[in-house]
Amino acid sequence: MNDYVNPLRAPQDRRLPRVAGPCVLVIFGVTGDLSRKKLMPAVYDLANRGLLPPGFGLVGFARRDWEDQDFAQVVHDAVKEHARTPFREEVWQQLLEGIRFVSGTFDSDESFEKLRETITDLDSARGTGGNHAFYLSIPPSGFEQVMAQLSRHGLAERKVGNWNRVVIEKPFGHDLASAKELNRVVETLFQPQEVFRIDHYLGKETVQNMLALRFANQMFEPIWNNHYVSHVQITMAEDIGIGGRAGYFDGIGIARDVMQNHLLQLLALAAMEEPTSFEASQLRTEKKKVLAAARVPGRYDLHTARGQYAAGWQGGQQVIGYREEDGVAADSSTETYAAIRVDIENRRWAGVPFYLRTAKRMPRRVTEVALNFKRAPHLPFTATDTEELGTNALVMRIQPDEGVTLRFGAKVPGTQMEIREVSMDFGYGGSFTESSPEAYERLILDVLLGDPPLFPQQEEVELSWQILDPVLDYWSSLDEAPEEYRAGTWGPRSGLDMLARDGFVWRRP
Amino acid sequence: MNDYVNPLRAPQDRRLPRVAGPCVLVIFGVTGDLSRKKLMPAVYDLANRGLLPPGFGLVGFARRDWEDQDFAQVVHDAVKEHARTPFREEVWQQLLEGIRFVSGTFDSDESFEKLRETITDLDSARGTGGNHAFYLSIPPSGFEQVMAQLSRHGLAERKVGNWNRVVIEKPFGHDLASAKELNRVVETLFQPQEVFRIDHYLGKETVQNMLALRFANQMFEPIWNNHYVSHVQITMAEDIGIGGRAGYFDGIGIARDVMQNHLLQLLALAAMEEPTSFEASQLRTEKKKVLAAARVPGRYDLHTARGQYAAGWQGGQQVIGYREEDGVAADSSTETYAAIRVDIENRRWAGVPFYLRTAKRMPRRVTEVALNFKRAPHLPFTATDTEELGTNALVMRIQPDEGVTLRFGAKVPGTQMEIREVSMDFGYGGSFTESSPEAYERLILDVLLGDPPLFPQQEEVELSWQILDPVLDYWSSLDEAPEEYRAGTWGPRSGLDMLARDGFVWRRP
Repeated sequence: MNDYVNPLRAPQDRRLPRVAGPCVLVIFGVTGDLSRKKLMPAVYDLANRGLLPPGFGLVGFARRDWEDQDFAQVVHDAVKEHARTPFREEVWQQLLEGIRFVSGTFDSDESFEKLRETITDLDSARGTGGNHAFYLSIPPSGFEQVMAQLSRHGLAERKVGNWNRVVIEKPFGHDLASAKELNRVVETLFQPQEVFRIDHYLGKETVQNMLALRFANQMFEPIWNNHYVSHVQITMAEDIGIGGRAGYFDGIGIARDVMQNHLLQLLALAAMEEPTSFEASQLRTEKKKVLAAARVPGRYDLHTARGQYAAGWQGGQQVIGYREEDGVAADSSTETYAAIRVDIENRRWAGVPFYLRTAKRMPRRVTEVALNFKRAPHLPFTATDTEELGTNALVMRIQPDEGVTLRFGAKVPGTQMEIREVSMDFGYGGSFTESSPEAYERLILDVLLGDPPLFPQQEEVELSWQILDPVLDYWSSLDEAPEEYRAGTWGPRSGLDMLARDGFVWRRP
Repeated sequence: MNDYVNPLRAPQDRRLPRVAGPCVLVIFGVTGDLSRKKLMPAVYDLANRGLLPPGFGLVGFARRDWEDQDFAQVVHDAVKEHARTPFREEVWQQLLEGIRFVSGTFDSDESFEKLRETITDLDSARGTGGNHAFYLSIPPSGFEQVMAQLSRHGLAERKVGNWNRVVIEKPFGHDLASAKELNRVVETLFQPQEVFRIDHYLGKETVQNMLALRFANQMFEPIWNNHYVSHVQITMAEDIGIGGRAGYFDGIGIARDVMQNHLLQLLALAAMEEPTSFEASQLRTEKKKVLAAARVPGRYDLHTARGQYAAGWQGGQQVIGYREEDGVAADSSTETYAAIRVDIENRRWAGVPFYLRTAKRMPRRVTEVALNFKRAPHLPFTATDTEELGTNALVMRIQPDEGVTLRFGAKVPGTQMEIREVSMDFGYGGSFTESSPEAYERLILDVLLGDPPLFPQQEEVELSWQILDPVLDYWSSLDEAPEEYRAGTWGPRSGLDMLARDGFVWRRP
């Protein structure tokens, strides 16, 4: 593959920064939002941190009738607006020398011939060594054509000493069957180890810190199991509605949009056994074991809930309901709230429900994983009843306000032994002076390094669909539309009931 | 004894404040510092919180030629200066009605006859029901005389429906033999359950919170044992020197002064098994089990250290050495620094050393109990070596800055998996609006209520001397004086070496 030595496996190198080797990054769909807001700024930030090699080229491919300098200007503006590190002219100038644009469409042989020429030129002009990463920032419907064109024009040819990789974004299908088909298309040209699936949640510092918390410490792992944990709540709440995404979102729904990927990946990382190492194969083995053991218990009427936001108030503003949004069918039954219970049938977690919920138009934007512990089995004092005590909780706050919170009982000052809940906090931002790399920065660097631990494998994608498919089938079999919930609230009644039946309540994060 | 219903055992009563019943509190040695700074203010604060009954009397006994009103003025001034709650005239006026003074000496029959009359008058005037607590705030050398006089004048007579109690302060002897003798004297007149030994550390909110932390929560107890804890450090550091206490301190030393009582009680509470309830008998049973299983390992040259402060700098000021202090012998070999290792030979703690240290003239005043956990047995990532990782620690901060700190490893932001130590804090003061009662407030109330869980029993006192006696014998058998350490430093070399030999270092709290 490449001559990069994985620092996770090479102690002697671990002080060296992980710097990408010479290569070309080709972005299809370069005029899209993701490219402008995330990918281009991430490329610049990597360069600015000294993590890109001098021999680096960036090629944009899109329909626009642009010259190289037009595209360069777009990159320049995107960087100025969205990069996290300061703009430095000398870094920009070096990056600029490797920026090219190819105007074309997926059905045009001419365009791909031009792309081939551009890349070949870059290879020799910038010494990129024939290493190419193709970033498909396009709808999956275009994958087949792009694969065919890359193949026809010899753009992903394997030679000794060089590498080709492809990067794809969710959605990885909309159910198990379509996920398999999509993968078949990609793997007509690329080997499994050449395919990098982006789940940008895995690039987040706080998600990786979950691994550090669990495995770099002695004190958390002993209580990380069904002897001590009562249940787990994984929440990904958005305060916004669907904005301009109706075209993509309506008919898909929030379960397919983020539960199948982000939430089930968070579940896998929170619940998996300790991998022997963070080498991709080891990490994936453990994630797959958990996903394979996970299932939504059969009574979907009891253990799942869905909802759709109605008009309401948010942040002091009146907002419209989902069905009134531009581009949404007036009788749409697409869910904007989804909650499921997942049971993990293994020794560590049997008997501990994992509750996943995600929704739009909630009171606030927050993503967190909360381990809720059982009550102390016995209290040697009676001044506080056991029933009045809250339970201990360890909350990993993924965003915004990244960090860890521990909730526990302490004695209320006074001459009696009365216990009240208190919490202690670790704030990721306040504790480190280092700035967190943006998730895309980390993930793009990993693509260029060929370092796969943070990318879900096709098997994980399929296992996730296997968990979700029966629920989606059940929902679509129902006659009624999803239950309405007022925008700016914590979701529909059925979502609360689902936990109440098990004796729990949702956290208000 | 009394008709007080223990709220720790009576769920139906637990919302009621614990209010003392009618009684008289007699303080011997009422002109001393302790009385003025702690006891009188505590009595007022209890009254102010509504925890004293209308039928309450306070009798001072001392050599001074005072009338009731002179003593009342002293109490008034002490309250104004040292009470924690605001001064309220109506509370003071009510208290004032029950304040009496008896001028006398321990060898004077006349004085005790006057005391008897005073108390009898109070009993009928204030309706105190013949319930009397005698607080011996005097040197132990006076105990025998006081006991004889109380007996001779019928001041501690047991009748149906009333109670008599005696309160004694440390030192409870200066070794096992003298502790037994002292107890024999006290028990000539009082039954064991009528003797209340004050260890004011046990009255501290944060010490009691240690019990809440351990037993009201599910998450700490599973890691509170030798599977996960590497060693425990209990520190009581003072920044001051001996001040005006040379007369008491020189020849006694810091081990007898605070290690025998405060530090070994902290050890007992941190290490004991969970008691069935906080009823005194249950709590004491567990403390005694731990103390009986604890011993300093035989090589006292390796597992203990002592020191004496030399001149140095503290808080920007030059301070003199111990031997230059007023009233200290120029060749004194009294230790002002003491450190011992205690092993607890039971299933929970075998193999986990407890290190106790206490000293004067340290860099800062701090008392804490720190559980230091073992390193994670395996790290799945190599970007940080296990050896470079600090260990997890749970620190219970007793004073000043009361609270709990948890130290653990988190991922350093960046594109590698590097781990660095961070901590999260719970501050007792910041988390509760309730004001903490002062330790003496709590303990005096418990005496008046006849509620003994927070008072060490004679057996605990003796077990503590059994732990310490061999060390004191060893030290006194040595020819050389204690090792000098510069004032304002963390103690002598031998103290550091003692831990280094076991592979540990003292915390810098």
